[in-house]
This record gives sequence, C-alpha cells and structure tokens, in this order.
Amino acid sequence: RTLKIGLIPGDGIGKEVIPAGKRILEALPASLGLKFEFIDLKAGWETFQETGNALPEETVSILKSECDGALFGAVSSPTTAVKGYSSPIVALRKKLDLYANVRPVKSVRGPGVKPIDMVIVRENTEDLYVKEEKTYDTPEGKVAEAIKRISQRASSRIATIAGEIALRRQKIREGGSPSIHKGPLVTVTHKSNVLSQTDGLFRVTAREALAAGRFTSVAVEEQIVDSMVYKLFRQPEAYDVIVAPNLYGDILSDGAAALVGSLGLVPSANVGEGFAIGEPCHGSAPDIQGQGIANPIATLRSAALMLEFLNEEAAAAKIYEAVDANLEEGKLLNPDLGGKAKTEEVVQDILRRL
Amino acid sequence: RTLKIGLIPGDGIGKEVIPAGKRILEALPASLGLKFEFIDLKAGWETFQETGNALPEETVSILKSECDGALFGAVSSPTTAVKGYSSPIVALRKKLDLYANVRPVKSVRGPGVKPIDMVIVRENTEDLYVKEEKTYDTPEGKVAEAIKRISQRASSRIATIAGEIALRRQKIREGGSPSIHKGPLVTVTHKSNVLSQTDGLFRVTAREALAAGRFTSVAVEEQIVDSMVYKLFRQPEAYDVIVAPNLYGDILSDGAAALVGSLGLVPSANVGEGFAIGEPCHGSAPDIQGQGIANPIATLRSAALMLEFLNEEAAAAKIYEAVDANLEEGKLLNPDLGGKAKTEEVVQDILRRL
Ligand SMILES: CC(C)[C@H](C(=O)O)[C@@H](O)C(=O)O
Ligand SMILES: CC(C)[C@H](C(=O)O)[C@@H](O)C(=O)O
Repeated sequence: RTLKIGLIPGDGIGKEVIPAGKRILEALPASLGLKFEFIDLKAGWETFQETGNALPEETVSILKSECDGALFGAVSSPTTAVKGYSSPIVALRKKLDLYANVRPVKSVRGPGVKPIDMVIVRENTEDLYVKEEKTYDTPEGKVAEAIKRISQRASSRIATIAGEIALRRQKIREGGSPSIHKGPLVTVTHKSNVLSQTDGLFRVTAREALAAGRFTSVAVEEQIVDSMVYKLFRQPEAYDVIVAPNLYGDILSDGAAALVGSLGLVPSANVGEGFAIGEPCHGSAPDIQGQGIANPIATLRSAALMLEFLNEEAAAAKIYEAVDANLEEGKLLNPDLGGKAKTEEVVQDILRRL
Repeated sequence: RTLKIGLIPGDGIGKEVIPAGKRILEALPASLGLKFEFIDLKAGWETFQETGNALPEETVSILKSECDGALFGAVSSPTTAVKGYSSPIVALRKKLDLYANVRPVKSVRGPGVKPIDMVIVRENTEDLYVKEEKTYDTPEGKVAEAIKRISQRASSRIATIAGEIALRRQKIREGGSPSIHKGPLVTVTHKSNVLSQTDGLFRVTAREALAAGRFTSVAVEEQIVDSMVYKLFRQPEAYDVIVAPNLYGDILSDGAAALVGSLGLVPSANVGEGFAIGEPCHGSAPDIQGQGIANPIATLRSAALMLEFLNEEAAAAKIYEAVDANLEEGKLLNPDLGGKAKTEEVVQDILRRL
C-alpha cells in the first residue's frame, strides 16, 4: 500500500520537526509493505505574509483530493486581530471535518516516575472555535461577543470515538502491554453547572452515546472542567480516556503535557472519516527556532498516531517502540527534557532503533 | 469599628467550615479594635429544595443593606439543568457587582517544597458566566449556544485591580517578607489567537489599563491560556499576579490549587466597591461531608482576605500568620494534606496561635 502524505511544516520549529516525521516514515522496515509519497504544502503566518492567505486553497484541495493523511507542524499567530488572518489549523480541522483531536499523554516507565497513560479526545469542530464574534459600542465602551456552539451531532460522535478508543486501548492492554488501568474508562468533562444548555447538551449526549451496547464494558465518569484540571494534577494515573469540548480539550491537553515533562513529547491526530493529520501539540516556539534543538518526538509520535488512524497499527507500533526506547535509555535528550542533544541526534538515535 | 458579616454556609462541607470562619473572626485580639456582628443567611441547593429559590431575595437585600462583608461556604449544584435552579454564588457576584475574584495561591515554606506565591485575579461578572444560552432543533439534532461576553469596562477594571494587587504585594515584600519575586509582574491570560475579538478586547484593554502611570514599576506579560496551564505546572515560581477572564480564571485557580497540595488551602475573595465576600475555592465535597474532617484553612484564609479588602490588613495578617504556623509545623493536618486531624482540632490549633 502506498500512502500519500501532505507535509505542512508551517512556521518556527514546525520546519525543523516535520522533516523528522518524513524521515521516520521513509525509514520504516520494508517488511511492513508500506510506501510513502510526500507532497509539500503551505500554511501559516509566513504563508499569510507572502500570499495574504494563511491556508491557501491549493493546500486544502490537494489534501482533499490526493492525500491519505498529513503531518502539520505548527504556526505562529499574531496575538492581535490581523485583518484576513485566521488560524490555518483551526480552519483545516473544519474544512476536512476532522472532528476528533486525539492526544495521548503517556509517561516513560522508570523509577520515581508517576505512571500516566491517558488520551484526551477533544472535539475539534465547534465550541468557541466556530469563531463567530462581533464587537459593538456601548455608552460604557466596547463590548465583544463570541458564540460557543455545542451540537448533539458533534457531541455524539466525539463521545463515540472516545468510547472506541477506550475499547481499543483495552484490547492492546489485554495483548499483554503493562497497564495502570483496571478497565476502560471514559471521563466526560464539561462545565454544565454553569452552562446548563451547551455543556449540559454535551454531557447528556456523551452519556447517551456511551450507553450504547458495544460500550457496556466501558466505565463512564464525569468531571467539571475546573475540578478535572485539579484532579489531572493530583491523580493523573486515574484517567484513561478524557473526552471534552474543544476549548477544555485544548487546555487539558497542555496541562497533561506538563505532567510528562514536556510539550515536546505530546502528539496529536486530527481525525475524520478515513483521513488523519498528525500534529505535535507544541507550538512554533519562536524562542528556540533555528537552533536545531527542537524535540522531534511529538512529531514522530504524531506520525505514528496518524498511521494508527489509517489502520496501519503495526507501523505505528514500530515508531512508538523506537521512541520509547530512546526515552527509556535517556541518554540522548533535547534541552526541553534536560538534555543537550540536537534534534538531528535524537532523530538518528530513534531511526537506529526502528 | 464593628463589621457586620453575613454567613452563608450553603451545602455540604460549607456548613462545617463557615462556623470556623466565624470563630476565628471572634477570636481576633481585642487590641485590633475590631468587633463583629454576624447574620446567618441562606443560599444553595438545599435552600432551593426548601424554598424553590437558590438565592432568596432576603439574602441579597440583607447583604446589600446591612452587611460590610460576608463568608460564603459552597453549594452543591445539580449537573443537569433543573428548572429554576441557578448557581447562587454566580448570581451573587453579579447582583452585588463583585467584579474581582481574587485567589492567592501560596506554598508553605519548607525543604523540598517548590516556592509558589501567586494571586489569580479572575474577572467575576461576565464571559460565559453571563449564562445567556439557547437551544434549538435542526435536522441533525439539537444545537445549543452560549454567549461569551467581554467588555472593555470589565476588562479594564479587573486589570486595574490586578495591577493594584501587584503593587500592594510588592510593598508588603519590601516590608521585609521573604520573596521569590524580583518585582511586581502581571501576566495577562487569554486565547486571542482564536478569539481575536472577545479575548482580543480583554488583552488590549488589560494592557492599556496596566500601561497607566501608576503601574510603571509593574512588568506586564501575556500567556495564551493553554500555555498558561502548562507553564503554571512547569514553573509556578515565575508567576506573581495572573489576570484572566472569568472561565480561564476558574480553571487556572483550581490548577494552581493542585500545586500547593490541596484545594482545601486556597481562599478567594469576591471583591466589589467597599464589599467583599470570602469564599473557599473548594466545593461542597459531598464525599466527605458530615465526617468532621473538612479542611477549614481555605475558609480561615478567605476570612482574612475579606478583611484585607475591607482595609483591615493588620487583622488579616494575624490570621495568615496563625494558619501558616499550623502548616509549617505540620503536626495537625486534615486528611486532604495527608494528616489525620479533625476540622475541630485544626481550628483549635490555629485559634491557639492567634
Ligand atoms: C494554535 C491554536 C489555534 C491551537 C488550538 O487552540 O487549537 C493550539 O493551541 C492547539 O492546541 O492545536
Ligand atoms: C460552583 C461554580 C459555579 C463556581 C464557578 O465556576 O465560579 C466554582 O467553580 C468557583 O470557582 O467558585
């Protein structure tokens, strides 16, 4: 099987880590029977400055018509509104209907390390990310409003995929992987004590979806988002799959990343029907860009995660194992993990272990 | 001076900790020249079940017409929409225009303890907490929408009080208290890379307010909310005052509480013009209610914080010192801190140190 993969480095360290993602895919053992073709695609703040469009039409149409998946690096965004600029990854998620943002957060086994093995499943198309905003003047000054939109349809499908991920993880554990979990658990996160209609709809719909027959073995719990952040830090080992509306998922996944040592380790996949974009959770990190020290692991794991959602689990497992071996040995680490290694050295170490 | 204080225990452990708050105020040394009168007031889920109103008119009118301040415990809220029920603390904040929710998070000095000394200043009247929601049917199922409202007026006054708190903290530090901070710093938190109008308005307005002449000595920084949660856990010692819109402030303060060991330690004050309600950050904790083991410290510190905002700083300092002494000794601790003490024992230990 040949997979056609779009490469969208974007800005900053996106340009340093996406090439690493490409290399690991190319280096997968031939015995897996996988071939790759790559297409370089543009998006981001630099692209906006060059072309007036942060997400050129061409990028979207090639992804749609030619690609099986993609790797997306990171984009720098202006903090103030710049006319015509809008985050390309947010737009891509919507345009390709990549409704689930899947973010596994796992600690490396080792003495003194709190065992963490969770996946945050973030709704990826709505909530405040519909970006419907307006500003108006009042006698007391400007007022701005944004719409937070929650639909039964999106809440149901995100909860369903969360349930499926919980089942799949359980199956892998039964296959013999060491586990910190007793059984599959989905924790539904919301703030329905304040937002009774929107988050209330998310909550009720998620519970309904998870009450389906095929999820009988999945335990379902709830956490209010503020308390979820608290619990995440107090007893992270208790969580398996966390499902949340878009913005809470965004915040929770950065929080969880802090628990495993660095955002530079945490991958994500933006998943739709038969399509997946791997994307490291870290941003464009202008402070370290150009120094060749960015941690490539989030991207390598994102490439693996993309493969999982394209049903190439054996290939994904290869990458995870090579990355874990590098981390468990702990000799060649980038500065974000307290090491001194360059991006290139870490990539080579991991390629060697494939 | 006699201060008239409303006591609103609410539900669950609120009923166990608010009496402790009352006792510490009564036990303050007479040399401070302060007297207290207390008025018991109702609010909460139980009140709703008895009277059909979670926040009786009487409670609001007595607070407005007779009280100088109040202590609020916690309320249990139903997770699904219950007709007519609405969170009384959210309503109180709006009705009394308590526009700032001030949440100091501080670690106890000690070997091996990461030094943390920050205040989260949370906007308390708008954002998604305006609770303007609607639900409608579509061919694809139900859709619900909520309004997130950000005004220049509220953003400006919350940034202003954040700046003032930063200056006040610096003054106290110069008074000789040991400090982990070089100078006053306010970190403005938002998500303007996605919400360019609403959070963009918060950001720009906060920066403008903090550019005022009297804040020249205050350093101002920004953090996107997801990255703020990450940084909060990676380098909490770097933060002094964090100012945020309502919902982010809610989430960040629970996160920060996890860093100092327990929500049972973290106080808050809901502050308006000349009025303050002290409120522990923890909830009604139905799991431990009635066992007499709730940690009273968040409430004792909330009573102190209320006094600070009523310009009774000497009295506040007394309470803080007594609480810190109990924690530093570390002998009589409640179960949330790993100890075995009852609420009553901790209260007595702290009263003894006043
Ligand atoms: C860059 C930003 C728009 C984005 C988001 O909020 O989704 C990022 O934080 C992420 O998590 O992928
Ligand atoms: C109980 C709830 C409505 C409240 C809030 O969200 O403000 C609580 O979490 C708090 O932080 O005081």
